[in-house]
Amino acid sequence: MTLSKLPYKGTRDLFPSEKRVQNFLFEKMNITAQLFGYEPYDGPLLEEVDLYRAKSGEELVNEQIYRFMDRGEREVAIRPEMTPTLARMVAQIHREAPRPIRWYAIPNLMRYERPQKGRLREHWQFNVDIFGGKENLAEFEIFNLAITLLQSFGANATHFEILVNHRKLVDYLFKDKMKLSSEVALKLYKLLDRFKKLPEAVFLEQLETFQLSKDHHTLFLEYLRLSSFEDLEKFLTTHHIDSAVWNFGTFFQLTKEFQLTSYLRYDPTIVRGLDYYTGIVFEIFDKHPDNRRALCGGGAYDRLLEIFGEKPLPGVGFGLGDVTLKDFLQSHGLLPDLSKPKNDVLLTFQIDGGMVPVMRLAQSLRAQGVRVITALETLKLNKIFPLAEKRGAKCVSILDDQELISNQVALKNLITGKQITFALNDLSAIIKFIMD
Amino acid sequence: MTLSKLPYKGTRDLFPSEKRVQNFLFEKMNITAQLFGYEPYDGPLLEEVDLYRAKSGEELVNEQIYRFMDRGEREVAIRPEMTPTLARMVAQIHREAPRPIRWYAIPNLMRYERPQKGRLREHWQFNVDIFGGKENLAEFEIFNLAITLLQSFGANATHFEILVNHRKLVDYLFKDKMKLSSEVALKLYKLLDRFKKLPEAVFLEQLETFQLSKDHHTLFLEYLRLSSFEDLEKFLTTHHIDSAVWNFGTFFQLTKEFQLTSYLRYDPTIVRGLDYYTGIVFEIFDKHPDNRRALCGGGAYDRLLEIFGEKPLPGVGFGLGDVTLKDFLQSHGLLPDLSKPKNDVLLTFQIDGGMVPVMRLAQSLRAQGVRVITALETLKLNKIFPLAEKRGAKCVSILDDQELISNQVALKNLITGKQITFALNDLSAIIKFIMD
Repeated sequence: MTLSKLPYKGTRDLFPSEKRVQNFLFEKMNITAQLFGYEPYDGPLLEEVDLYRAKSGEELVNEQIYRFMDRGEREVAIRPEMTPTLARMVAQIHREAPRPIRWYAIPNLMRYERPQKGRLREHWQFNVDIFGGKENLAEFEIFNLAITLLQSFGANATHFEILVNHRKLVDYLFKDKMKLSSEVALKLYKLLDRFKKLPEAVFLEQLETFQLSKDHHTLFLEYLRLSSFEDLEKFLTTHHIDSAVWNFGTFFQLTKEFQLTSYLRYDPTIVRGLDYYTGIVFEIFDKHPDNRRALCGGGAYDRLLEIFGEKPLPGVGFGLGDVTLKDFLQSHGLLPDLSKPKNDVLLTFQIDGGMVPVMRLAQSLRAQGVRVITALETLKLNKIFPLAEKRGAKCVSILDDQELISNQVALKNLITGKQITFALNDLSAIIKFIMD
Repeated sequence: MTLSKLPYKGTRDLFPSEKRVQNFLFEKMNITAQLFGYEPYDGPLLEEVDLYRAKSGEELVNEQIYRFMDRGEREVAIRPEMTPTLARMVAQIHREAPRPIRWYAIPNLMRYERPQKGRLREHWQFNVDIFGGKENLAEFEIFNLAITLLQSFGANATHFEILVNHRKLVDYLFKDKMKLSSEVALKLYKLLDRFKKLPEAVFLEQLETFQLSKDHHTLFLEYLRLSSFEDLEKFLTTHHIDSAVWNFGTFFQLTKEFQLTSYLRYDPTIVRGLDYYTGIVFEIFDKHPDNRRALCGGGAYDRLLEIFGEKPLPGVGFGLGDVTLKDFLQSHGLLPDLSKPKNDVLLTFQIDGGMVPVMRLAQSLRAQGVRVITALETLKLNKIFPLAEKRGAKCVSILDDQELISNQVALKNLITGKQITFALNDLSAIIKFIMD
């Protein structure tokens, strides 16, 4: 039997050209998180299923999670998201840790789903969370961090927007205004969450099944049509909805202060599904017509630690996947060409006797931080330039009879075309030539 | 029901102080691999079980692997090691890729084992492999890379040694000299592999079950007593074993040339289990008396692609786990103190009106690459120094009535004790003060 060479369904083989892209994304994530003083963490790949059951309910656990029994009869699952692990970890230390707690991670996650563009079974996700910060300031910081990350790739308000809503407002609308029971409200949440994915006719048909009164139906449709913060303000005034339900206060002040309002848009359909959010919720949306999709979702929550018997601890966070981020950057031409490796120098030898001097030079250069790739056999002159090109080497060395006799090496810079012969032991001149 | 806050058995919660240590290890791994021109790759967390079955046999698959059926009736496993994935990926591209192929990865892996010191169920492993390089030169490069990595942490030949053997020699001894069948030789391999783990009496007792002839028994014990390359040379001469069986040629020349022989020791018990190695095999051993354990294992192989119906492609590689590496560095005092984060500055405000100027300053500093942590509420003076200490901030800012009125900010360097008041808009002076 010959085995398949293909990766498991919905997962990726990250060959070097793809892994370099992923590393490029990870590096920006790490740098941005550190600029804001967020500390790195990570957790186990496997968690007990009870953790997800407590947080997300039986349905998600049954449908979308890779789960199995281990040999010790523990029901375990491959993490489909990081938040439950984060909650478990924060529950262990939040009493002693100085607040706010600012943490980030870039874990690999698996979901059991039908693979489609932008959604694979395995992906990596940048998770950023702040716990115990003053509400509006923490929200602002999280938005600011997400925007700063995307800006670091060269993206701006022409490329993406942040669609914002507030769970307290939706709750108030459904329960206080429309008098829905918690159970029915939950179902309407689910439908609202699918608004963008359903054809309008299907959506309206499904809305009919709720048998809302005419007034409530009208109110709901009016709500659905809101498309800006100005619309929202009018809506709240018209329907006498207390601004306390929707108090962005400092958050809005800061977004204006920092000219971030151009990134924000009110969107009544953003509710983040059945998730644990209790405050502001948001999704970062790609504005590219071919790629209208959420890159990132997040929001504020305060009862995440409840399942561990801990008191409420307010938090705000988001998750940004590597697949959607890459698609976003690609669709806007913001991804640099990383198809080739980057090496400072390719050291070659044209005669067997050149091998030891070359290995010795390689050793000395590496000790000074020069990225050196060495040939492992004698190479003819006509082979080395194509090889250097494929290896992404900036410079290349030549060592033939002539150089060997005089203890020299010829170096060529492939970008400038400049070529100089150096004494093999003149390390500082060689490094200067290569790194210039 | 209250959920457990503890991680799943045999796995770790990496809180920031631990994650920083892991990142420190990963950074050195990345840097070292890049100094040698190795390209990064990664693969899926899940593979089909057949892949491991083909490579390692049914026993390993049954005993040590997390495996389950997915909903599409595929038998899948969480990767217990990276080599099968690597082989699958190299099989896809080796015909077109320029040789040698130099790749590395740092994947998370899971094995179903009883957790013990230095061996957890989940760990990360630095995997480095070279394919299609001239045999001895490729081996030398791999050894050199492993040594360079450990040296980059400050380790040297007083801290670790590389125990070396050669599968061809053991094969020749077992099959040609001792006339064992392949099946019996395999069993003796297994026993030899456990030599260091078994009490001598138990080992000898188990050896008896092989019912070796007196001559072969004596020969085997003589082999077992070899403890240096000099011993080995004598042994080969005495028993007329052709040096072609054990030809290190260029490899030895280079290790001598580069003064690496002090790191190497011949060890007849190193065979790397039932693994796919066909040439040189090695383990890097900690010399610390409290931590006598292999950090790293590797070797040369040439039939890795056979299971995909591909022709032999010689390769050399090793795997180095993060748990054993950390234990090694810790036991020798080579791990820096990373218990606290590192931030350039903590920006605080003592009055509400200071918040916006502080956020604005934070924004400007971050745009220049300064790692800024901001307070999210007004802080009293006596609170800020302990907080800065906990946050690992080098500098701290104070912004009270007086500064606010005059558009200034007071900055203190907590290491030197120096304190200066700056105009809030004098960004370059502020940055110079913080980063100096």
